[in-house]
Amino acid sequence: LQTKLPAVGTTIFTVMSTLASEKDAVNLGQGFPDFDCDPKLVGAVTDAMTRGLNQYPPMTGVPVLREAVAAKLQNLHGRSYDAGSEITITAGATQAIITAILAVVHPGDEVIVLEPCYDSYIPNIELAGGIAVRVPLVPGSFRPDFDKIAAAINGKTRAILINSPHNPSATVWSREDMLRLQEILAPTEVLLISDEVYEHMVFDAAQGRVHESAARFPGLAARAFIVSSFGKTYHVTGWKVGYVAAPAALTAEFRKVHQFNVFTVNTPVQHGLAAYMADASPYLDLPVFYQRKRDLFRAGLAKTRFKLLPSEGSYFQCVDISEVSDLGEADFCKWLTTEIGVAAIPLSAFYGNGFDQRVVRFCFSKKDETLNLALERLAKL
Amino acid sequence: LQTKLPAVGTTIFTVMSTLASEKDAVNLGQGFPDFDCDPKLVGAVTDAMTRGLNQYPPMTGVPVLREAVAAKLQNLHGRSYDAGSEITITAGATQAIITAILAVVHPGDEVIVLEPCYDSYIPNIELAGGIAVRVPLVPGSFRPDFDKIAAAINGKTRAILINSPHNPSATVWSREDMLRLQEILAPTEVLLISDEVYEHMVFDAAQGRVHESAARFPGLAARAFIVSSFGKTYHVTGWKVGYVAAPAALTAEFRKVHQFNVFTVNTPVQHGLAAYMADASPYLDLPVFYQRKRDLFRAGLAKTRFKLLPSEGSYFQCVDISEVSDLGEADFCKWLTTEIGVAAIPLSAFYGNGFDQRVVRFCFSKKDETLNLALERLAKL
Ligand SMILES: CSCCC(=O)C(=O)O
Ligand SMILES: CSCCC(=O)C(=O)O
Repeated sequence: LQTKLPAVGTTIFTVMSTLASEKDAVNLGQGFPDFDCDPKLVGAVTDAMTRGLNQYPPMTGVPVLREAVAAKLQNLHGRSYDAGSEITITAGATQAIITAILAVVHPGDEVIVLEPCYDSYIPNIELAGGIAVRVPLVPGSFRPDFDKIAAAINGKTRAILINSPHNPSATVWSREDMLRLQEILAPTEVLLISDEVYEHMVFDAAQGRVHESAARFPGLAARAFIVSSFGKTYHVTGWKVGYVAAPAALTAEFRKVHQFNVFTVNTPVQHGLAAYMADASPYLDLPVFYQRKRDLFRAGLAKTRFKLLPSEGSYFQCVDISEVSDLGEADFCKWLTTEIGVAAIPLSAFYGNGFDQRVVRFCFSKKDETLNLALERLAKL
Repeated sequence: LQTKLPAVGTTIFTVMSTLASEKDAVNLGQGFPDFDCDPKLVGAVTDAMTRGLNQYPPMTGVPVLREAVAAKLQNLHGRSYDAGSEITITAGATQAIITAILAVVHPGDEVIVLEPCYDSYIPNIELAGGIAVRVPLVPGSFRPDFDKIAAAINGKTRAILINSPHNPSATVWSREDMLRLQEILAPTEVLLISDEVYEHMVFDAAQGRVHESAARFPGLAARAFIVSSFGKTYHVTGWKVGYVAAPAALTAEFRKVHQFNVFTVNTPVQHGLAAYMADASPYLDLPVFYQRKRDLFRAGLAKTRFKLLPSEGSYFQCVDISEVSDLGEADFCKWLTTEIGVAAIPLSAFYGNGFDQRVVRFCFSKKDETLNLALERLAKL
């Protein structure tokens, strides 16, 4: 059997989580909380199941949840999306991204990805018959290199994929960054896929940092699939619900594929989320909640020989390992998991060519006690 | 924006369900129960959520659920699948089918579909860059035409998609049918995708009819993705959980795509289903449960001028409308929904070329009172 994805093995997140649980390591690899969600949210889903909301919802998602998403985008970013024709509920952000790609990328089309990038993007583009054009973020700082982005655009470019707050580097694009992208795309028909799953984890608000959603920039929003995830926002990564907001013409193409991919998404979970979203405070509180964890974790890491990179947003903290070990990233992560009892993710997993810059990613979306246990173990280094 | 799927509109199931609810019609169109699942199943999912099982499960599905599926396939069909390397939990059967297709169909490969067939199959093949080779079932009887199937196979044929019990025709393949397919495929490398979502709705056991899963035929199972759906089996179509069983080499390719499509499936729902499946009686009772509904519905329809086709399995009953109306199938279904207050699905929706044979499909997976109300309305015809 000839494989369709010759470069693809098992996703690094699965590999490292499996190793972590075999070795009983503290799992700071795969990005998910080890604390639970609000019991009210569980109650809201149970309530929906008990009320008998267990059959197919509308293909596009239940209206109350689409309306809650539209209201949120309006409140936070001042852009109005029509809940009927511009919001679609998806089986997580990953499914939203592959569906957008399958919907718009024709065989031979080019799609720009900014490396390092999430490991599904490039295989997604290849499955659609497209060509992933890998443009590096600036080495070291992981900031967008707009000259390189502009240079990568040509007549075959169908779309560009961006992700802020950024996984794995934890950088956050500024207003100037977004304006610059808008300016570059203005004369083109290039579509934008904006992966904003960490939208509610942006730190240092006191210094003026905010999440600059593509929804805030009319020239971007008009060409954008904006993707996010309820799992990240409400501490239920295992529920697998996300959404995509896009202008009606893009949404129409998206739904043509969506209906024949997953058709639709778990009904009671959608109703539960919609009921829960009537109260905005859970997501408004997240920046402070996660910034405290970031600070706790960074304070501990500062006592090791890891070199700390900035963490402006997301679940993640990257560190340079060169003072700690001579191993390559992947071997170091295996060694750290096995010998020190802390799992991390090598940044090389986020590069199409496995580029190794001696940087690994930790996830701090964990109970304080988990972070403290990990820090205790890392203190040995 | 150039569409990827020029022939595709909104799936007929969404169109008819929307019209049915607008017109307050009895919805015998889209296939889903209007009665609720066992409260024990709701309890099992609630229990999992309450125990904090709300983060990412393993990419392939939670082990207890994969083991429950393997045990079921062993008990019912005597084939042993390895729960670790040969069973994958999916976000419904539709997602299983597109994922299998994306995993094995290379651009230019041919995939045989037997028409009428479920409306996602052909767009799924086209999204993979493949060519759907449409082979008709025998007109009128909807039985497989093995000479036509054999003649359609050539060096470019990558796979064949079958579906028994069959949606929409409600026919069930016999042991002889499956043996014949096995014989035809034996000298080839053609893969099989066997959509068995109605596996537990096979009628007339007294006359010896059983579900002949591809799992029972070693020559088929060795090349097959066997797909099924928990939603259909446990009256929770809105939960969107299914599975695929396939030999390890096929499963490995499947998972390469699965991990980058949905990554994985709702954790508490998986745990709830696994706990519930410890008791086999819910699915063992289904043939009798649904046969009674079929018989009730057929007895009522026998009093109308519809010509009844056989219903050997599935949720469905097809009728020939030629004595009742001069309208084409699609117009008839709209008229029936709007004027008579009963929604149905035109068989033309299951043909790549919209072939109209004056047959429509009713779904009898409904409360008796719903079926009786529909029959009352249909009696007017
Ligand atoms: C889908 S598993 C990976 C979770 C995640 O987003 C990450 O760890 O980067
Ligand atoms: C995915 S909606 C359609 C449900 C179904 O299987 C059918 O009605 O044929």
